[in-house]
Amino acid sequence: MRNPRDFFKPLAIDAPEPAREIPFKPSRMIHFMDFSNEKMVAKAPDLAPKVDILLGNLEDAISVDKKEAARAGLIKVGREMDLGDTALWTRVNELASPWVLDDLQELVTQIGDKLEVVMIPKVEGPWDIHYADRLLAQLEARAGLDRPILIHCVLETAQGVANLEEIATSRRMKTTRVGGGHPGYRTIADPDPDDPDAPRPSYQQDPWHYSIARMVDACTSVGALPFYGPYGDISDEEGCETQFRASFLLGCVGAWSLHPGQIAIAKRVYSPDPEEVAFAKKVIEAIPDGRGVHMIDGKMQDDATWKQCKVMVNLAEMLARKDPELAEAYGFEPAGVQV
Amino acid sequence: MRNPRDFFKPLAIDAPEPAREIPFKPSRMIHFMDFSNEKMVAKAPDLAPKVDILLGNLEDAISVDKKEAARAGLIKVGREMDLGDTALWTRVNELASPWVLDDLQELVTQIGDKLEVVMIPKVEGPWDIHYADRLLAQLEARAGLDRPILIHCVLETAQGVANLEEIATSRRMKTTRVGGGHPGYRTIADPDPDDPDAPRPSYQQDPWHYSIARMVDACTSVGALPFYGPYGDISDEEGCETQFRASFLLGCVGAWSLHPGQIAIAKRVYSPDPEEVAFAKKVIEAIPDGRGVHMIDGKMQDDATWKQCKVMVNLAEMLARKDPELAEAYGFEPAGVQV
Amino acid sequence: MRNPRDFFKPLAIDAPEPAREIPFKPSRMIHFMDFSNEKMVAKAPDLAPKVDILLGNLEDAISVDKKEAARAGLIKVGREMDLGDTALWTRVNELASPWVLDDLQELVTQIGDKLEVVMIPKVEGPWDIHYADRLLAQLEARAGLDRPILIHCVLETAQGVANLEEIATSRRMKTTRVGGGHPGYRTIADPDPDDPDAPRPSYQQDPWHYSIARMVDACTSVGALPFYGPYGDISDEEGCETQFRASFLLGCVGAWSLHPGQIAIAKRVYSPDPEEVAFAKKVIEAIPDGRGVHMIDGKMQDDATWKQCKVMVNLAEMLARKDPELAEAYGFEPAGVQV
Amino acid sequence: MRNPRDFFKPLAIDAPEPAREIPFKPSRMIHFMDFSNEKMVAKAPDLAPKVDILLGNLEDAISVDKKEAARAGLIKVGREMDLGDTALWTRVNELASPWVLDDLQELVTQIGDKLEVVMIPKVEGPWDIHYADRLLAQLEARAGLDRPILIHCVLETAQGVANLEEIATSRRMKTTRVGGGHPGYRTIADPDPDDPDAPRPSYQQDPWHYSIARMVDACTSVGALPFYGPYGDISDEEGCETQFRASFLLGCVGAWSLHPGQIAIAKRVYSPDPEEVAFAKKVIEAIPDGRGVHMIDGKMQDDATWKQCKVMVNLAEMLARKDPELAEAYGFEPAGVQV
Amino acid sequence: MRNPRDFFKPLAIDAPEPAREIPFKPSRMIHFMDFSNEKMVAKAPDLAPKVDILLGNLEDAISVDKKEAARAGLIKVGREMDLGDTALWTRVNELASPWVLDDLQELVTQIGDKLEVVMIPKVEGPWDIHYADRLLAQLEARAGLDRPILIHCVLETAQGVANLEEIATSRRMKTTRVGGGHPGYRTIADPDPDDPDAPRPSYQQDPWHYSIARMVDACTSVGALPFYGPYGDISDEEGCETQFRASFLLGCVGAWSLHPGQIAIAKRVYSPDPEEVAFAKKVIEAIPDGRGVHMIDGKMQDDATWKQCKVMVNLAEMLARKDPELAEAYGFEPAGVQV
Amino acid sequence: MRNPRDFFKPLAIDAPEPAREIPFKPSRMIHFMDFSNEKMVAKAPDLAPKVDILLGNLEDAISVDKKEAARAGLIKVGREMDLGDTALWTRVNELASPWVLDDLQELVTQIGDKLEVVMIPKVEGPWDIHYADRLLAQLEARAGLDRPILIHCVLETAQGVANLEEIATSRRMKTTRVGGGHPGYRTIADPDPDDPDAPRPSYQQDPWHYSIARMVDACTSVGALPFYGPYGDISDEEGCETQFRASFLLGCVGAWSLHPGQIAIAKRVYSPDPEEVAFAKKVIEAIPDGRGVHMIDGKMQDDATWKQCKVMVNLAEMLARKDPELAEAYGFEPAGVQV
Repeated sequence: MRNPRDFFKPLAIDAPEPAREIPFKPSRMIHFMDFSNEKMVAKAPDLAPKVDILLGNLEDAISVDKKEAARAGLIKVGREMDLGDTALWTRVNELASPWVLDDLQELVTQIGDKLEVVMIPKVEGPWDIHYADRLLAQLEARAGLDRPILIHCVLETAQGVANLEEIATSRRMKTTRVGGGHPGYRTIADPDPDDPDAPRPSYQQDPWHYSIARMVDACTSVGALPFYGPYGDISDEEGCETQFRASFLLGCVGAWSLHPGQIAIAKRVYSPDPEEVAFAKKVIEAIPDGRGVHMIDGKMQDDATWKQCKVMVNLAEMLARKDPELAEAYGFEPAGVQV
Repeated sequence: MRNPRDFFKPLAIDAPEPAREIPFKPSRMIHFMDFSNEKMVAKAPDLAPKVDILLGNLEDAISVDKKEAARAGLIKVGREMDLGDTALWTRVNELASPWVLDDLQELVTQIGDKLEVVMIPKVEGPWDIHYADRLLAQLEARAGLDRPILIHCVLETAQGVANLEEIATSRRMKTTRVGGGHPGYRTIADPDPDDPDAPRPSYQQDPWHYSIARMVDACTSVGALPFYGPYGDISDEEGCETQFRASFLLGCVGAWSLHPGQIAIAKRVYSPDPEEVAFAKKVIEAIPDGRGVHMIDGKMQDDATWKQCKVMVNLAEMLARKDPELAEAYGFEPAGVQV
Repeated sequence: MRNPRDFFKPLAIDAPEPAREIPFKPSRMIHFMDFSNEKMVAKAPDLAPKVDILLGNLEDAISVDKKEAARAGLIKVGREMDLGDTALWTRVNELASPWVLDDLQELVTQIGDKLEVVMIPKVEGPWDIHYADRLLAQLEARAGLDRPILIHCVLETAQGVANLEEIATSRRMKTTRVGGGHPGYRTIADPDPDDPDAPRPSYQQDPWHYSIARMVDACTSVGALPFYGPYGDISDEEGCETQFRASFLLGCVGAWSLHPGQIAIAKRVYSPDPEEVAFAKKVIEAIPDGRGVHMIDGKMQDDATWKQCKVMVNLAEMLARKDPELAEAYGFEPAGVQV
Repeated sequence: MRNPRDFFKPLAIDAPEPAREIPFKPSRMIHFMDFSNEKMVAKAPDLAPKVDILLGNLEDAISVDKKEAARAGLIKVGREMDLGDTALWTRVNELASPWVLDDLQELVTQIGDKLEVVMIPKVEGPWDIHYADRLLAQLEARAGLDRPILIHCVLETAQGVANLEEIATSRRMKTTRVGGGHPGYRTIADPDPDDPDAPRPSYQQDPWHYSIARMVDACTSVGALPFYGPYGDISDEEGCETQFRASFLLGCVGAWSLHPGQIAIAKRVYSPDPEEVAFAKKVIEAIPDGRGVHMIDGKMQDDATWKQCKVMVNLAEMLARKDPELAEAYGFEPAGVQV
Repeated sequence: MRNPRDFFKPLAIDAPEPAREIPFKPSRMIHFMDFSNEKMVAKAPDLAPKVDILLGNLEDAISVDKKEAARAGLIKVGREMDLGDTALWTRVNELASPWVLDDLQELVTQIGDKLEVVMIPKVEGPWDIHYADRLLAQLEARAGLDRPILIHCVLETAQGVANLEEIATSRRMKTTRVGGGHPGYRTIADPDPDDPDAPRPSYQQDPWHYSIARMVDACTSVGALPFYGPYGDISDEEGCETQFRASFLLGCVGAWSLHPGQIAIAKRVYSPDPEEVAFAKKVIEAIPDGRGVHMIDGKMQDDATWKQCKVMVNLAEMLARKDPELAEAYGFEPAGVQV
Repeated sequence: MRNPRDFFKPLAIDAPEPAREIPFKPSRMIHFMDFSNEKMVAKAPDLAPKVDILLGNLEDAISVDKKEAARAGLIKVGREMDLGDTALWTRVNELASPWVLDDLQELVTQIGDKLEVVMIPKVEGPWDIHYADRLLAQLEARAGLDRPILIHCVLETAQGVANLEEIATSRRMKTTRVGGGHPGYRTIADPDPDDPDAPRPSYQQDPWHYSIARMVDACTSVGALPFYGPYGDISDEEGCETQFRASFLLGCVGAWSLHPGQIAIAKRVYSPDPEEVAFAKKVIEAIPDGRGVHMIDGKMQDDATWKQCKVMVNLAEMLARKDPELAEAYGFEPAGVQV
């Protein structure tokens, strides 16, 4: 068993201290880019203000002969381009592949100060997180970084799901589960006893309910952020919105976006509810110093809820700066004035 | 690791022995009362015969300035009022709050002989149950009680759900999960290939399926009783009944009732099926001494199933005593004759 | 904790080596037979070519006075009848019953060379698998068998489900979960605000979603095969197909069949998709020696996926030999030519 | 995880209830006999009054061609001979061997009512105990026994020691560790700085300290009885007594005896100290009803210590009945008078 | 499983934050006092400068009729007396006893600002620590304390030792193990082959080796402080010193003292070695900012070892302030000058 | 939890398969060399035939400015020198240090085919082993190795010891514990009652008993090889031999040697006993095919013991080839004839 007191100690000499709380920044969509394509590289600065997270993909969908170009393109984006407040992430190749060691070494030592999160695909257990954690620490120390790079793990294997709670308790964690409905997953009504030959209605079910609900509980229980994965059929915006909303209602904070059309959907679905933001502002006003127990609108609020309200208002402010409509909905002054 | 032989030893000198089996008494609804309201206190004896469980709420929904009044009201009910066979429960304030220590000390030492169950909100792990278990043992010994007070834990946090199986294996346990549907949690049908622009049907899903199913399995596996939590929209009786029935079909034995209107619904949904009661009576008649293996209606029955049948018939008799309709459905003589 | 290096060592001197990989043979339906009925015994050779697995049932549905006849009938089938490639399984009585020790001793020593799998009902934890594992090893050694008999465990108790992942990591494992929909498990739409008295649509839900999804993940994570259990209403073929298909989409490889009518349904639902078979063939052709990393249709393939493709093509070949329609769909020569 | 409430349920229908407390009977020596030797069989009734436990050995030291004779001899002793109060135990062959299944089936069905304990050699983990536990339950039910046969496990493998705590928490447990000193296990003093060439004293160490101390703690923590194993050199009575005494001081309750000469040593070493017996009598007198908290000789005594005192005095009475010297030392009337 | 991120969160609203590192203050001896004796109360201020820790004992050795006087005496000491830098601890009654709830409530609310550590006797598992931890948090919040009271657990039961590592990972922990040699625990030499009748030397062994070594490793692995328990024979100073030194060499930082005579022994044995203090000073000088990797006297030193050196020098300074001899040995200016 | 079926799968694509059994080669001493010293490099071929294992040390004792020279020297030895059958090992810098990533990358890609074992210092838990395991797999694949490099972990921290059993169950494992006696760790005899002032004998104890005994049990239980660590005082050969022998009697297979003088001691202490070799030869002759159960010299031998005998005889043959004295003792022909 591991000493909880060691949980927050760096895993390499002179590596930065691990984050004590997972930072909660705008993260309604993780937009996937293939930077082996030079046009994509060129587009990055224009796209950045429109999304919360820009991700340079190195893994699946990048063919073997383009692995190095995709990595080089991402380094170019990290080094040369101004992305504003938008976070830069990457998805590296899987841990058993021949590219991942170079992916991590080159990215951390060359653009480690720009890269906020490394997405690790096909995670199977906490041991995989520890491997990436230790390796990142080594490379952060070598690059002289002063804030740690976070890990976002993708649960694509049954073994990953079976180990979900243990994975979520690992350090640096954010988690994703891929999904998508299927018309054949249905229940059917019993025959009508009065008209047994009548057509029987059947109802489509959500095949990902268990996996997403379990992931959300596991993440939330440790303060990690649960994301919904990709919605593959880019042309089906109604299906995408239904699925994103279902994941939002189960507790996800954002989703992957594979196409500009999905960005708007994610904004619509995952932006915090103005009423919740208003309540959070009320709590902060009522408890200026964040101490003690207070009743607000009939519910007990203490230092823990006060802290959550701070996070919520802070997030809303960040979103408002990017988006005048949200600024208005949340009752903040327009961004221009704030800065 | 803990010694299983110690599982049934009292946790304080002269405390009563823990229950070897969770008693299965009428528990179709846990009716919530706010006894800081004197009218509610006065109403208790009238309401008691209509419900299975009466709960004096001290936690959420009781404002800070009424915490002590609610506690005092409950003590008055416990001391002065005749509730018949109806069980008296309480929901104390959460374990980190400034009131819970006084809640427990005053209630156990003053009405510990009347109080059957203490509901603990926001349980996060087996450590919370152990804390309450040990403290109750101390206070039971001090009050000279001769039967232990049981614990009912409320799973309101993601961490509680992630630790569900461990919590359920704790001593004294009964468990609740709060729920409620949401119209936005849906799946949508694929577009009709012959008419791609036609409206696509979508189907609402049960967002609580995973949490309730997992809770029921965890509880049932250790003989604890799973309850459904509150249905918040008091005016929506059809929605309430749909939700209660869904929870019943997943295995819950009862639900919270927040309003007299929900009591009747709970009775309708959670009363045991007369056919099951009839079968249980048949098994008991066929195996008078409860030993050996017997085939009844083509299924093997042994001492374990015989015991479950005893519990079922016993419960039905208790319900029949309160409710002439059920008495008839179960084929028991009316209550008046029995007593 | 157990030494993983010992995982593959026999549990009795001279017992056969345990299987390093669960063999993946045709297993779309497990057809249940009552061999206490002599007519059933006589029918076995005719039925065998029509099903993937023939199971001699000894447990529930066999009355106490027919337990020995059912065992004797199964031994007769195993000894005297030619079942071709069709696998012979049994479901023994539960581990606490007075028959199971004789069931296992007689079957293994008399038809152990014919019996591929023993189904153990009402499994509660890994300890139950270990018990059967050790006892089978003893009896396999005594019978001089040269391949081990596999275990298929049936999860019928809440405790079994709560211990699911641990059970699945046990040796020799295949797993089943019983199911079946219920018209009362529904969600209901909110009232229409414009027409609050209008009937509100409600949607039936799959009450087994959690249990099956969790079982499939647990099994798949360790290479065990998940099966769907029985669909009880033999006359309702549409309901049966809906349920089988739902289980297939969640990941089950086959189901129980209780009646010849369900055999055709299982074939329809659980036969591998010709497109997947075609893709597997493509992978095998592209990577003749199964080493290194290759991109095929834009996805990385390595030795692990190559191995899975081998299994898939192998299974398709076995099915094609039995079924000319599938042979055609998969693009194999008819069976007569292959042999 | 296992339900602690199930810990005390029988593992087969109609098997006797498991013991809630490990019975503490005279157990200063477990005397090993080879009943394949007819003379040994004949001697059993004479030897019985001289020892606490008589064990019919079936495993190591019994050659392959005598396995069945040793089993038959033990059955003869169990059936035909009067051993008085002396307990009859057996050591069966190891769980992977070809004899153990017959050992258990024949012994339990033929002399199960006489056999108190089955010693299982080379136990490696709790799974081995569960196997024997379940199998014994089956056979006890078949034999119609009304008290369960206990298990004594022998820790002879490194894996057994590594799993010690888990093994001890298993049901029915008693545990043994084999030992024996070695002259080469020593520490040596530093050279004398004033006379560096002087011979340096060296001190022999106890190579079994860790194993025995850990076993004693694990057993005692769950109420199981720790035994010391064999002292192999029968002629070395001084060595044997030193070793037995060391094990007694670490907490063992008895040892194996391989020769009559070791019986007297075990009696000398393991009989309870008269002063402790006297104190136990004092506690029982001072707390007639075993309730509440009392100070006796400056130490707090409660119901738990009262119970231990009862066990101690009870044991002393049993020993006194056999041994007039102990009767006197403990201040009991001689045995003849008591009966 | 518990979220490591929650490890350092207070367990009650407005309770002080838990200590992130166990403070390492002078702790060479924990001197036990019986404050039911008024003379002892009066002596406390004189004794304080002579010891590192003064402990008011409420448990064993305090008879039932003096429990309240001992508690009152301790409160008087805490409230009215000046103990200088010397730490004030208490040993409360055991968790199952009728006094412990009052012990904790009165001590924390009345002298919580003076009390540094509460010693909990007969700890059996991490659940006991959690109970005390949660209760102390409640009472600290009530008393408005601004630093948390630490827990020192005493391992007196076999179950405590079996759970040692889990106990040590609990929050707030310091640990003690009681000991004492025994002349009968020996090994004996083999007979001399040339003179088999010659007396054979035998060597006394340390019966506590396993328990202390395991406790030290478990504590040190999590930064908790391991203490040796009492040496009961007050008159045997040579025996006491041998035992204290053995425990020091295995890694203990201090011991209990039951009599003034043992105080001097503890000082002699447990004061840090001047050479180690000198080395620590050297490391601090060589690495002024505590960052990077340095070789000092041929061994790598980094921020982790630098931190340990800081702790060591800090401790030495505190000891030097009390003790001119140590001040000289460590090369510090006499205390008078420093202040 | 991890799938035991995956235990033997490579952790990187095209990495060699992990060893199914830890190879048991001559390993009586691990001789430490500092190859930053050119003379040591030059001496390697002469020293090789005299030792079982030659280790190029990169960690402690190599100063910061010589880290790269030591690594380069080792690579030179691995590339250019003929070491015969003698194994080449290295001790890399600790996992948090700035050198370890280069150590591993350079050594594996440049002399990976020569390097048999990498010693990892200061291992704290199974996560550290997994990190090294995964990284080595990546590098082995890159270097095109066809046999895996093993890991030898050094337990130097209390946390490592507390996690010992979990570490030992990791793949690729061999384990070491550092030690050394201390004259102050003693027990003392009670005063002589007849002459209380007489000097009391005291006996030095082995302070490492617990750590070594626990390590040996943990390693042996999983087939890993336990080694004793360094004996630091090179001039004290008698002390060294006493310590080595103590470790051998507790079960270690070899020790570190820091100086040529310790090589001869290790040979004397750790060479297998000729009597055991003779017995192993007897078993192999008696069971030519390694199947079934046999009694040899009164003890049951089966396939498992047969396999151990094979390992023993094989080892003896390897040692005999190097050492004519051992060849004679074991009854093998001299090496010259064998080859």
